[in-house]
Amino acid sequence: MKEITSKDNPDLKRIRQLESRKYREKYGQFLIEGPVALEEALKENAALSLVLCSRRFYEESRGAVLIKALEKAGVSVCLAGQGLFEGLSFVENPQGILAAVEKPRWKREDLFSPGQNLLVLDRIADPGNLGTMLRTCEAAGFGGAVCLKGTADPYNPKTARAAAGALLRLPLITMEGPEELKAFCEEKGKRLVCTGPRESLPYYRARLDRDVALVIGNEAGGVCRELMEGAWKRVSIPMEGRGESLNAAVAAAILMFEALRQKQQKQG
Amino acid sequence: MKEITSKDNPDLKRIRQLESRKYREKYGQFLIEGPVALEEALKENAALSLVLCSRRFYEESRGAVLIKALEKAGVSVCLAGQGLFEGLSFVENPQGILAAVEKPRWKREDLFSPGQNLLVLDRIADPGNLGTMLRTCEAAGFGGAVCLKGTADPYNPKTARAAAGALLRLPLITMEGPEELKAFCEEKGKRLVCTGPRESLPYYRARLDRDVALVIGNEAGGVCRELMEGAWKRVSIPMEGRGESLNAAVAAAILMFEALRQKQQKQG
Repeated sequence: MKEITSKDNPDLKRIRQLESRKYREKYGQFLIEGPVALEEALKENAALSLVLCSRRFYEESRGAVLIKALEKAGVSVCLAGQGLFEGLSFVENPQGILAAVEKPRWKREDLFSPGQNLLVLDRIADPGNLGTMLRTCEAAGFGGAVCLKGTADPYNPKTARAAAGALLRLPLITMEGPEELKAFCEEKGKRLVCTGPRESLPYYRARLDRDVALVIGNEAGGVCRELMEGAWKRVSIPMEGRGESLNAAVAAAILMFEALRQKQQKQG
Repeated sequence: MKEITSKDNPDLKRIRQLESRKYREKYGQFLIEGPVALEEALKENAALSLVLCSRRFYEESRGAVLIKALEKAGVSVCLAGQGLFEGLSFVENPQGILAAVEKPRWKREDLFSPGQNLLVLDRIADPGNLGTMLRTCEAAGFGGAVCLKGTADPYNPKTARAAAGALLRLPLITMEGPEELKAFCEEKGKRLVCTGPRESLPYYRARLDRDVALVIGNEAGGVCRELMEGAWKRVSIPMEGRGESLNAAVAAAILMFEALRQKQQKQG
């Protein structure tokens, strides 16, 4: 097993580069961390281009099993001293193993299949919220997600962590802006549903079971005017209590699982 | 305005102490941070025992307005040098103002009013998840929340941030364990609903609109056996996709808003 002993090692440098969006885009790779994420990547046959583990993890039994499985799958693992490993700044609670993975390459056709719902993210700013939304999107059986320009990078390490593997499985594309989305939805027969102001239609009164492009807007400013005006329905989540606001990922989950509920109840 | 110039200042020390649960319990206080949280605390007439702001925030117009409003309400504000302020370790992105607030004192009777639903948190470990759940609980019109022993401290600064003001308004108590909860639910006519394994009743087939004590279990291990066995209903959230798991705060939100949907649709 290759061992890394210098902080100038090119593999370490690559890992550090992948913390920035610029290099994730340049190399078409992103970072995942922790044994659960690595086990999942292995299960999904994700293209792991570089795996780094700490000596402590390598010596644990869970680590030994995982590393053996990775090597059996033809993935080479580098060992880094504990200090070097923990010095990788994006790891808040170092879990002993991390990897650079190739971004999956999705085509628009992967998302817009007949009947399926889509999630549209309109300038979602918080990487953790974004990751939670992608995880929920997959679990709700949506066909995929579209990130509009201005949304956080879905391949940010914080997003990848919150997405819990969804990045490897859920079709995901980016689009320049509302015009492009609207044209594509029209062509493919997807109806735009936007979360609107409080007096909008309660979300459970809208038909959401199929062919909906559900737009979740920026945490502070909501959905952009252009999509709001072009929407088939504007829906709201009626609330009680004096707080009257929800975390954006929670609001998205309530809407996506209402869509799934409607679909499941229709199927009996 | 009092100015703090030494890191040994007793007010600074108190703030640092309140980062630990031990001192939050000793003094019956907790920390909130950022202008939004302070504005909300002011609106709710929360007992602010100590407010600290940075010089930079004091010199901004938003800061000046807020500090004037606080002083008008009889709250005294201390100024701390930028370095001292930012040195308070729990502030990840210092927002220029923070405060120690008295914990509200809730009685059991505040939570168990007839008709109302309750949220029960059974060993929720992540402070951010816990805060999001409390925020959602308030928005869903639940009567309050019970933290069972083993749950993170709801007054943790991370929880307070994610709860977005709900800690000041939502009745919240702690209980030792399942026995105590079961006895109290029986006495007050609340039916225990637990999230169970995949083959349980789909959540939308259970009647959740009133008098339910909805139990959300630990992120990894789920609801404890004792509550599971004593439950009126065990429900699951049917999912699609290969990920088949949800963030705990998302799962809690789907269930609480289903309860609210049932209530609202019944009321027409």
